[in-house]
Amino acid sequence: MIFRQLFDSVSGTYSYILASRSGGEAVIIDPVLEKVDRYCQLLRELDLRLVKAIDTHLHADHVTGLGALRDRTHCVTIMGEQTKADVVAMRVGEGDRIAIEGLSLDVIYTPGHTDDSYSFLMADRVFTGDTLLIRGTGRTDFQNGDARQQYDSIFNKLLRLPDDTLVYPAHDYKGDTVSTIGEERRYNPRLQVQSVDDYVALMAKLKLPNPKMMDVAVPANMRVGLHQEELTRQGLALSAREAIECLGRPDVLLVDLREASERAKHGTLSGALHAPYPGIADNLKPGGMLREVAAATGRRIVFFCAYGERSAMAVQTAQDAGLANTAHIEGGLDAWKKAGGPVVAG
Amino acid sequence: MIFRQLFDSVSGTYSYILASRSGGEAVIIDPVLEKVDRYCQLLRELDLRLVKAIDTHLHADHVTGLGALRDRTHCVTIMGEQTKADVVAMRVGEGDRIAIEGLSLDVIYTPGHTDDSYSFLMADRVFTGDTLLIRGTGRTDFQNGDARQQYDSIFNKLLRLPDDTLVYPAHDYKGDTVSTIGEERRYNPRLQVQSVDDYVALMAKLKLPNPKMMDVAVPANMRVGLHQEELTRQGLALSAREAIECLGRPDVLLVDLREASERAKHGTLSGALHAPYPGIADNLKPGGMLREVAAATGRRIVFFCAYGERSAMAVQTAQDAGLANTAHIEGGLDAWKKAGGPVVAG
Repeated sequence: MIFRQLFDSVSGTYSYILASRSGGEAVIIDPVLEKVDRYCQLLRELDLRLVKAIDTHLHADHVTGLGALRDRTHCVTIMGEQTKADVVAMRVGEGDRIAIEGLSLDVIYTPGHTDDSYSFLMADRVFTGDTLLIRGTGRTDFQNGDARQQYDSIFNKLLRLPDDTLVYPAHDYKGDTVSTIGEERRYNPRLQVQSVDDYVALMAKLKLPNPKMMDVAVPANMRVGLHQEELTRQGLALSAREAIECLGRPDVLLVDLREASERAKHGTLSGALHAPYPGIADNLKPGGMLREVAAATGRRIVFFCAYGERSAMAVQTAQDAGLANTAHIEGGLDAWKKAGGPVVAG
Repeated sequence: MIFRQLFDSVSGTYSYILASRSGGEAVIIDPVLEKVDRYCQLLRELDLRLVKAIDTHLHADHVTGLGALRDRTHCVTIMGEQTKADVVAMRVGEGDRIAIEGLSLDVIYTPGHTDDSYSFLMADRVFTGDTLLIRGTGRTDFQNGDARQQYDSIFNKLLRLPDDTLVYPAHDYKGDTVSTIGEERRYNPRLQVQSVDDYVALMAKLKLPNPKMMDVAVPANMRVGLHQEELTRQGLALSAREAIECLGRPDVLLVDLREASERAKHGTLSGALHAPYPGIADNLKPGGMLREVAAATGRRIVFFCAYGERSAMAVQTAQDAGLANTAHIEGGLDAWKKAGGPVVAG
């Protein structure tokens, strides 16, 4: 396995690049905007293809690298389903699993620092974001933070992992790089409390100043999405309402870009083909299956995904491959459902 | 295995704690003085006994934690045999091996950044000090640095390790935490040279300012030894010359505290018992073997080691155990040899 912990000294942020092998797919956790050049260089040097980029939560102390990495690598951006970020390609919830070639991360909902805080478990290690830090915990006094929820997340979820599980947080300011669940249970000063009420009282006493970057970072981190308006201006987007009217039309081929797990959880559109986003470039190349289907049927390909981000990228990929007669559903299945469109089992 | 990389953000120094198991012996590489409290706390929390502390070279950018760790834990301090530090307990050279319970480090002499720069290889990872950094190399413009030697150390020693050997340096200022030999060979900009002369020219052009801490750190790092004078004042030390006169006296029991590898390499004193330093406290306790021998023979125990540091600590340990009739040879076998004392095979 390839595992790289990278440090942004300005914000004290740890980011992580994971891959099962050289030449394979990679995922990045909590990337920092200013370090995107370095990540991309390292990905090239390690011969990795970035396919997914995850933020553990909406950060208040640095601007996320999610959008820039998506624009450069066409990776799928991922956050928890509670996120207030405008568009991330995939939203995950408790019990979901994020897979790349050879690796998978179990999704654990751990609210408290923020209401969109998640942790991600991969075999012997857990990425805890700002929920559980090394000998500390994330503050709970803004962004819908809640000390009571954080206590529950830590004591009833994270501390139930095996004692020797490695803890890799999103931050450390003191020079530690890793810990274990057993150590944190025994030696984390914030966790030596007798009850949830003790913990709530302890967190209430902290009175921390707001992060320096907060006024910049939080608004910036809420706008990570592709500008789908541009495709709309080019006539390459259908609104959800327009898309609903297309349902069943013989000249339209709906293509679902989401993963099987998302289809199973959220359903899909009647008659849609399934062509997962990671393979879309191959599918659209001359000789590619989807290209052949489009040619054989003469139908216009209308891509859709969860929120419109992957489908917008797929339209661009199609155009790059010389396939002009495509469009996407703006806002994805989320917008479709909000507009009252019918959904079938995925 | 327990492996901890710890960061000092002031000097950008990485320190490493290694142990084969919880409850066992540990070694630390390149500790920083200001972080000694944190190391000791972490050692306690991980239930480790620090038995050895290594500096890869005489640092110019931070004060070493070697002396403080020795004073707190009675660990054996280790540097290369070229070191200008006044007293370190053990000096190692090319091809030596530093062992603790369950782990061993192969010693590689890699001069160039300084003339006392060493790297240490443990299975899949190498600790490169300031010789090979991540996408960089240590400067060679002071402390007997030599770009030509550094080229040889890097190209003819380190880069001959397997490509996937992990590279853990003493410093990183950009936020990387680890690399591999293969990556550095291919992507380290300083190593993309055609010849040693190219490398020498490249290093000559750097014109770096001196490290901020240099005037403080270098002199401080040359004085890490125990104050052996205190034992001398108390009449608990023999000078090498006095010790030579004791040789063969029936009322003196010479005790060699060094490791078997040091005895094999440097010889020992005629008639000396071998009682390695790590077990000395047990040996001197009531019921301990060395205590029994001293009681049975009525002889005065005269400890010696390589440079007098371990033997000074052993005298202190003996006193703490209620054994007053001990002394040590000031300056150890090194001083003994310089005074013309005879040595036999160890």
